Amino acid sequence: MTTTKIAPELIADHAHSVSARVDSDYKHLGEQLARRNVNIDTLKAEVAKFAVAVPSWGVGTGGTRFARFPGKGEPRNVFDKLQDCGVIQQLVRCTPTVSPHFPWDKVSDYKELRQHAESFGLGFDAVNSNTFSDQKDQPLSYKFGSLTHADAGVRAQAVAHNLECIEIGKQIGSKALTVWIGDGSNFPGQSHFRRQFERYLDSNRQIYAALPADWNMFLEHKMFEPAFYATVIQDWGSSLLAAQSLGEKARCLVDLGHHAPNTNIEMIVARLVHAQKLAGFHFNDSKYGDDDLDSGSINPFQLFLVFNELVDAAQSKAPNFNPAYMLDQSHNVTDPIESLMTSAVTVQRCYAQALLVDRTALTGYQDSNDVLMAAQTLKTAFHTDVTPLLQKIRIEAGGAADPVATYRASGYRAGVAAVRPAAGPSSGIV
Amino acid sequence: MTTTKIAPELIADHAHSVSARVDSDYKHLGEQLARRNVNIDTLKAEVAKFAVAVPSWGVGTGGTRFARFPGKGEPRNVFDKLQDCGVIQQLVRCTPTVSPHFPWDKVSDYKELRQHAESFGLGFDAVNSNTFSDQKDQPLSYKFGSLTHADAGVRAQAVAHNLECIEIGKQIGSKALTVWIGDGSNFPGQSHFRRQFERYLDSNRQIYAALPADWNMFLEHKMFEPAFYATVIQDWGSSLLAAQSLGEKARCLVDLGHHAPNTNIEMIVARLVHAQKLAGFHFNDSKYGDDDLDSGSINPFQLFLVFNELVDAAQSKAPNFNPAYMLDQSHNVTDPIESLMTSAVTVQRCYAQALLVDRTALTGYQDSNDVLMAAQTLKTAFHTDVTPLLQKIRIEAGGAADPVATYRASGYRAGVAAVRPAAGPSSGIV
Amino acid sequence: MTTTKIAPELIADHAHSVSARVDSDYKHLGEQLARRNVNIDTLKAEVAKFAVAVPSWGVGTGGTRFARFPGKGEPRNVFDKLQDCGVIQQLVRCTPTVSPHFPWDKVSDYKELRQHAESFGLGFDAVNSNTFSDQKDQPLSYKFGSLTHADAGVRAQAVAHNLECIEIGKQIGSKALTVWIGDGSNFPGQSHFRRQFERYLDSNRQIYAALPADWNMFLEHKMFEPAFYATVIQDWGSSLLAAQSLGEKARCLVDLGHHAPNTNIEMIVARLVHAQKLAGFHFNDSKYGDDDLDSGSINPFQLFLVFNELVDAAQSKAPNFNPAYMLDQSHNVTDPIESLMTSAVTVQRCYAQALLVDRTALTGYQDSNDVLMAAQTLKTAFHTDVTPLLQKIRIEAGGAADPVATYRASGYRAGVAAVRPAAGPSSGIV
Amino acid sequence: MTTTKIAPELIADHAHSVSARVDSDYKHLGEQLARRNVNIDTLKAEVAKFAVAVPSWGVGTGGTRFARFPGKGEPRNVFDKLQDCGVIQQLVRCTPTVSPHFPWDKVSDYKELRQHAESFGLGFDAVNSNTFSDQKDQPLSYKFGSLTHADAGVRAQAVAHNLECIEIGKQIGSKALTVWIGDGSNFPGQSHFRRQFERYLDSNRQIYAALPADWNMFLEHKMFEPAFYATVIQDWGSSLLAAQSLGEKARCLVDLGHHAPNTNIEMIVARLVHAQKLAGFHFNDSKYGDDDLDSGSINPFQLFLVFNELVDAAQSKAPNFNPAYMLDQSHNVTDPIESLMTSAVTVQRCYAQALLVDRTALTGYQDSNDVLMAAQTLKTAFHTDVTPLLQKIRIEAGGAADPVATYRASGYRAGVAAVRPAAGPSSGIV
Repeated sequence: MTTTKIAPELIADHAHSVSARVDSDYKHLGEQLARRNVNIDTLKAEVAKFAVAVPSWGVGTGGTRFARFPGKGEPRNVFDKLQDCGVIQQLVRCTPTVSPHFPWDKVSDYKELRQHAESFGLGFDAVNSNTFSDQKDQPLSYKFGSLTHADAGVRAQAVAHNLECIEIGKQIGSKALTVWIGDGSNFPGQSHFRRQFERYLDSNRQIYAALPADWNMFLEHKMFEPAFYATVIQDWGSSLLAAQSLGEKARCLVDLGHHAPNTNIEMIVARLVHAQKLAGFHFNDSKYGDDDLDSGSINPFQLFLVFNELVDAAQSKAPNFNPAYMLDQSHNVTDPIESLMTSAVTVQRCYAQALLVDRTALTGYQDSNDVLMAAQTLKTAFHTDVTPLLQKIRIEAGGAADPVATYRASGYRAGVAAVRPAAGPSSGIV
Repeated sequence: MTTTKIAPELIADHAHSVSARVDSDYKHLGEQLARRNVNIDTLKAEVAKFAVAVPSWGVGTGGTRFARFPGKGEPRNVFDKLQDCGVIQQLVRCTPTVSPHFPWDKVSDYKELRQHAESFGLGFDAVNSNTFSDQKDQPLSYKFGSLTHADAGVRAQAVAHNLECIEIGKQIGSKALTVWIGDGSNFPGQSHFRRQFERYLDSNRQIYAALPADWNMFLEHKMFEPAFYATVIQDWGSSLLAAQSLGEKARCLVDLGHHAPNTNIEMIVARLVHAQKLAGFHFNDSKYGDDDLDSGSINPFQLFLVFNELVDAAQSKAPNFNPAYMLDQSHNVTDPIESLMTSAVTVQRCYAQALLVDRTALTGYQDSNDVLMAAQTLKTAFHTDVTPLLQKIRIEAGGAADPVATYRASGYRAGVAAVRPAAGPSSGIV
Repeated sequence: MTTTKIAPELIADHAHSVSARVDSDYKHLGEQLARRNVNIDTLKAEVAKFAVAVPSWGVGTGGTRFARFPGKGEPRNVFDKLQDCGVIQQLVRCTPTVSPHFPWDKVSDYKELRQHAESFGLGFDAVNSNTFSDQKDQPLSYKFGSLTHADAGVRAQAVAHNLECIEIGKQIGSKALTVWIGDGSNFPGQSHFRRQFERYLDSNRQIYAALPADWNMFLEHKMFEPAFYATVIQDWGSSLLAAQSLGEKARCLVDLGHHAPNTNIEMIVARLVHAQKLAGFHFNDSKYGDDDLDSGSINPFQLFLVFNELVDAAQSKAPNFNPAYMLDQSHNVTDPIESLMTSAVTVQRCYAQALLVDRTALTGYQDSNDVLMAAQTLKTAFHTDVTPLLQKIRIEAGGAADPVATYRASGYRAGVAAVRPAAGPSSGIV
Repeated sequence: MTTTKIAPELIADHAHSVSARVDSDYKHLGEQLARRNVNIDTLKAEVAKFAVAVPSWGVGTGGTRFARFPGKGEPRNVFDKLQDCGVIQQLVRCTPTVSPHFPWDKVSDYKELRQHAESFGLGFDAVNSNTFSDQKDQPLSYKFGSLTHADAGVRAQAVAHNLECIEIGKQIGSKALTVWIGDGSNFPGQSHFRRQFERYLDSNRQIYAALPADWNMFLEHKMFEPAFYATVIQDWGSSLLAAQSLGEKARCLVDLGHHAPNTNIEMIVARLVHAQKLAGFHFNDSKYGDDDLDSGSINPFQLFLVFNELVDAAQSKAPNFNPAYMLDQSHNVTDPIESLMTSAVTVQRCYAQALLVDRTALTGYQDSNDVLMAAQTLKTAFHTDVTPLLQKIRIEAGGAADPVATYRASGYRAGVAAVRPAAGPSSGIV
């Protein structure tokens, strides 16, 4: 079937057609970096190890409460989603895992699912539970909350769903459960903040108790939406309190779009590293709220500054530092495959740039309060155009120098559109 | 049919049961106001004239991109919506008009629709067009814009829809068209800002040309959502530029939830009054973004400050000052009828409090820079509990002293739920 | 000396002139509250116990980096400041303590200072250290930090200053040290976030070790200013981490103006109560940043919601709950005495309104998800005009029914202006 | 005198020592650009024409209301300031003009001042008036406003000061007056918004009438600070209304730090270009408010997007498009000369990158809604490291390849510190 994967020959041909140019640019970049005492081949080996997970729901077209405008050839189920994720990994070679979402991705045979993923060279990352929307035939509604609902029956149902997610996760090779809830309130007075938080802790203790020994539990905070007056886990402070209360396996996940305006996110990263509670990231970008835009599309320097903290933590051997990386974006106006490939490369780019920071010099400037040179040390790394480095890494791994161009040349989207029926327009919820 | 309206006897009984208490409180409030040289009966007459429109879509349950949790007895069509709006007006007596939304409220016979509305004591306010979502069988998609789309065909389709809205509006007695579009971009570079704005002006000129002589066109700005990087009419500055370019009938509508964080909205109101371009308001409240929460539920003092500007403009006879008032809220966790009744009363409360401001004293304090007393002059008005005044007005008009209690006692919701089928859960768009 | 205090006869005369009106209003309010099963005299007794500290620096005129416009008769030293604070307490009767700031308020004889305060009926609240500005003849500069400075010598100097503050505090009867630092950075890269935080903890451990057994240490977070890229204790999460690390006596102080835009502050209060780490408050209001405006002048409902949490915590006997209250405002365009009196009454007003919340009903609505009635339960309390209650409390305590009017009638400001020389204009720093 | 300027031989030596490396990098960049059909020499010629003004006050050390920590060798007067600006221009070669501020820069002989500037190769840009702080011996205070003060006498004084600025400007060769006022209010009710705005217009009409035929008047908006509740010219909408009311010579100046959180500033630029009312820019960067940080230090991509609009406007020959560029930063923790040099280069970098945008391709992507490729077209330009291009331009113009290194090597700061007395610490205003 021509739509299953991109033909390897096509990728090879594309790579071949640009390899001379890439080699030349790579060589010159290497000369520039050598002047800064950076060995480009060592750097390449380091960057080549970088990986970021793709969320299964990310390959579908997103929307807003006002409308969803479907794309062509949208995946109908988790098997289609894995196929799309396989294409992404084929071309960018840094997205080897998929993070599934339940009940959306439920199937009858998880062994089959796992094999299906493996056939695309994919494994599974953290499993995600969903108690922020009601499913058909669900006995009790999450309209007024799930893990924190005033009614014990609803909480039990939500706990049970998370336990089921762990069970599924075991079968597909996951090692973590991500818990994000929409619980909160739309009116002052609607919820009793402290009792609600205690219910949150109580429900999560039951989930935590079911975690296998080698699993972690990722708690995800969000300032607002779907709740518009108050959210139970509204910021990293509440997330930290909860993670501390639950135990060692509980950690705090940072979604870049879930913060108050103007928040210094890289500082939060540093604090969670200090507290040994950083779970990892949901990468995306935003200008206004939880906009779920493509990673680095609005403020690439901020993404670089986050990686600057991460590289520093890794190089200084911060204890219990082992963050999980995932893209979490909503693609409303682009082909999701193209956006995810571009975003994976953008995240990888920031990682490479952060590796370029001269940390010995930086430490010296920081300790002597040479503020301007400290700032310029970061800027020098950020200004470096590492494009040829990233291209070289992809080509060497059998991927595409230019993933979007290769993808477009393959006709993949038209191929799947021919077999996946088109969705009708969604008129929005308002 | 028992569900058609609230039984007038029920309302009268409720009113009777509290009238002694209301009279006593009203009398004491009158004494307090008399000390401030305010005649409470004169005030009552003024407040009793206040009216705010209800949007037809407001009586349905709202949602977010994550989920919609339907309520009981939701209206199936515009006839059901008008019935619900009729109940609101029956009880609060300050919501005599409904603002319809097309194509959602399209019917085959608008004369019948108008008569149906009149049977509930309702008229129609501004008509609203919808080019932010696609409808079934719509030839061209609004995925990449409507009135500002790069393709002339899409623009023509969007213009035609607005022209149709004007035609419908003529038949149902409207005098204004409200144009809000979702056009914008999610990525830097996606749209050319200036060409896009010129297309906006060009499309609107065609709509403007079709306005009857006694109509106005309301342009509504919004900072973000559904577009997450840039919106075409993102603030009152762009709205003003457009309204100036279109002509006298074009004015700027202020939705309280459509502004940047920290924005001083009452100042914008003052500037639009100065420019003789204030169209009116979409009332709601918010804490984070376009949260569409109940009016005054988060920051009631801000709502009072808006009315302080409006009363000042009216009393100083600002030229071309004739704002239209509408509630525009999304009711995700409450009975929409209860929220709309409560919000109508809240808006009316702020109007009454703004009328209580001693403007002669205020002017004196402002001109002599007695800052503290100027501020306290507003606070004295805001602290005044005008509840008995509003209750008295409702009772005298045949409404309910306590609209929510009376509504609940009537069993209206259970009645309509028996005849209107329940909607299934909506699992969200993400 | 006529300027020392307000003449008690003047206060009594003013009180006498309005007592009939106050009694009438109080009586009617009592009737209204009785219908809600609230005994107004019991309420009065509760509210009468409320107290909020005044900061010594608050009686001076504030300014911005652009300019300071001095007022008339500004206090020249801590003795003058105490005199002004004495007048505030004389008239409002709910500000019995003063919070001093060092080195600004240093004197040679603290016994004398304490007696001076007592002569005005004043005691001392928490002592505040200052390491955010350099003093004349200070050996090392805080330009690049104080408790977190890269240089150990600067940190030692800053620690020593805090130890000195504790020593002074012991002499004047304080029981707490408030530590707010301006440390942070203006450029990405300037400071190493984790090492800087570790230095913060290390310095504070030395200060903590010197605390007397019955003292507390209040850590105050602030999002930005004077540092404009990153602040060491930027939010309540970092403050919590630090307080946890230091020990039981360390707690988190909430200044209402030190948060990101849109932050739900009342939620943070609830979380700190849960964590048993709430130190107390610096009250003020703001629209944009750390504006230090008069408490409740911009968003009075938010202040009420904060007190709603506090009253709930007290009534539910939350463990280790004993918050300290202080006004912390900058008075740039008003007479500081007038602003502080008005703000003290505003804070007291919100406390009284929060006591009016029907918590039994509220709990019922919360537990049954009657969202609208839960919200209205708060609004009913907030709408209540408790002005006559507050007036009655002040009159009974020998204060003024209308503090500002009585103060103005006293001629106090002109009196002190005659003996305190005028300051020249300050042209700003930019 | 060795401190007057940097020795030209030092600059030449430094340039010579790096010229081989710069030539090599420039050559390789040229090859890369040639593949994109960009001729690097043509580009170089274009970028070399770019110039940005330096504000006279920028070479002094800034501060906050909490403290000012003076630097070494701070300029004592406008002659010292010009000397410092001369050094900046010597090294970066793109800052040929200085924007003075009155009364700070008043002298007895403006012919002498002009000659002094010319001796450093400098001319004068827009003159800035100051009515936001009081000066010694000033008859009336601006505490409650200047051009908008309720008192006609204060307004007349403020108008007269602006007229004097124009007179001075004529003598020193300026062609524009920038009017920024601190007028506003700290309390709701303090000012009557509409009357205040009318007074603003009335005062400015008097100033406008005095403008020479070839002058412009730049109106600068700011959201907040020093006024904390409302500012008279709070956003571009009010600025536009004022500029329209005044006439053709009045235009709207955009200071990057004067906007609400999350504001899309590049959109405002596009709207002002459309309205033919863009005066120009005050460049700086910010994370929270008007932080006055170094240009591009926090969000360099935003600065690039602003220049993307400017280059597009220039290349499409937008009518009446002739923006003025100035740096407007507050240097609290760096050597102001170093920050201004670095910022000038940063602004120049963004201009060069914006020139690299393939506008033909971009237009095609925009018109066909190829969103991803449109976004990537901007990113490709932004990723380009134009450092060698900028170095080459500076070297060819006699400037420094690395301005900061050359400046440090020169010992200039130590030189001026020897002759300019040190300032004492400023303890802040709070």
